[in-house]
Amino acid sequence: MKLAMLNDRIVPVAELDPIYFDRGIYFGDGVYEVLRSYHGKLFALDKHLERFANSLAAVRINSVDMGQIRERVERAFNTAELAEAKIYFHVTRGSAPRNHVWNADLEPNFFLTVDELPDSSAEKAQGIAVSTHPDWRWKRCDIKSLNLLANVLARQDATDKGYDEAILVDEAGLITEGSGSAFFAIRGQTVQTAPLTANILPSITRQYVLQATQDIGLKTNEQCLTPAQAASADELFIAVTTKDIVPVVKFDATTIGAGTPGPQTRALAQAFLKYTV
Amino acid sequence: MKLAMLNDRIVPVAELDPIYFDRGIYFGDGVYEVLRSYHGKLFALDKHLERFANSLAAVRINSVDMGQIRERVERAFNTAELAEAKIYFHVTRGSAPRNHVWNADLEPNFFLTVDELPDSSAEKAQGIAVSTHPDWRWKRCDIKSLNLLANVLARQDATDKGYDEAILVDEAGLITEGSGSAFFAIRGQTVQTAPLTANILPSITRQYVLQATQDIGLKTNEQCLTPAQAASADELFIAVTTKDIVPVVKFDATTIGAGTPGPQTRALAQAFLKYTV
Repeated sequence: MKLAMLNDRIVPVAELDPIYFDRGIYFGDGVYEVLRSYHGKLFALDKHLERFANSLAAVRINSVDMGQIRERVERAFNTAELAEAKIYFHVTRGSAPRNHVWNADLEPNFFLTVDELPDSSAEKAQGIAVSTHPDWRWKRCDIKSLNLLANVLARQDATDKGYDEAILVDEAGLITEGSGSAFFAIRGQTVQTAPLTANILPSITRQYVLQATQDIGLKTNEQCLTPAQAASADELFIAVTTKDIVPVVKFDATTIGAGTPGPQTRALAQAFLKYTV
Repeated sequence: MKLAMLNDRIVPVAELDPIYFDRGIYFGDGVYEVLRSYHGKLFALDKHLERFANSLAAVRINSVDMGQIRERVERAFNTAELAEAKIYFHVTRGSAPRNHVWNADLEPNFFLTVDELPDSSAEKAQGIAVSTHPDWRWKRCDIKSLNLLANVLARQDATDKGYDEAILVDEAGLITEGSGSAFFAIRGQTVQTAPLTANILPSITRQYVLQATQDIGLKTNEQCLTPAQAASADELFIAVTTKDIVPVVKFDATTIGAGTPGPQTRALAQAFLKYTV
């Protein structure tokens, strides 16, 4: 490479941190996880590590020692000393001159942050509003990859319209999931959500929600909803690692139920809590 | 943020270069261009800047001064003193704690590299082999964004099978384009390529190819091909900024024509050259 430029400044290539040549920034060539703790204890670490290993395998980043990842996550969490922590980490394929084709010898880059978990009690108590957006994502949303621009654009669109989350609708007119959450509807005694396909992230919170559904005696239906079906449901909610179950009280222009969190959603959120202790 | 970790090392957040919090790496939240020079002169700079401005607008990165981008590209090119240069640059939305929703005040990050253009004369003389791969990309491939993992995986698949480029096939069984190139077939006196839709990058080389097609008296048909139609074409080629026209002599298992670059493709490549002087 002859030279590089950062904003207005021409810089010798040798002086640049390898992060500037990270395939994560050139291509989004990496995968990530977000996990949390409840009351000083990491939640579902094994499941997050298992999903992370699946994502790595799917994009063929093969040289990652999962024991080492676990050690790093635990060490970072212990060092941070936060009871309610949010942990983000990603692995990219490594740093190299830009080329779609990768070198099998690349050393993956690991990056992690620990933050205080934002308080979501108001959202959970009052419920949130969601708006629909076309699902522009790629065809392998089962991989938790760094290619998230479609999610970002959808979520910002919701924010700009005064909504809290975007619910993605595919070309067939079916809801896949939220821009950063799984999406559920309750009608009568049945909780409905999209089945796990290549278009859906295998949400870990979703697993616990489906378990909680059984625990409180509701039925489960893993089938996609249309926006019209969602708008006419008795109750709606999203599920996401950082907030677990959040009631949805408005879907586009439609108020759901009485415009307050419904009883079944509240029962599910209560049932979910027992997994976290 | 409480702490960060780079590989095995816990680091105080304040010591980290803001590049670690670049939305380019978190989300692929940025857009890019690749351009080249011929014989000491930048080629199609206006067109690349126009496309870049379109990409920026499509992802709503609004605070970029295009005159400043032009000045940086020209300054970097002049400083590098390479007659045959390859220039890569991207702009990301900026650096900030990870959040899908962006802050409108973010300062975009600009990054550019200049390299010696790799020699492609052998590929152009002998032709290349291409293999098909499902088009896993998102639904806004008209935006030249940093979300390129689908392209990377397809291209690596081709490489692993001994091919030089991946040709992407959508769910309807139609060829969209190459993982990093536009794709063309010639049958009789007609040059066929996919029409420009949201699934296709508006390739600048493609514009010149279509012009060259007219220059040498061939007809143009902007309609998607199936792999079977491509395999039975008289000639095939790809078009890409860094190599302009490259003949394709093998499509999956099928040898195209005599297995050597065809006469029409060679005539097009010759006609293309006059735009570059």
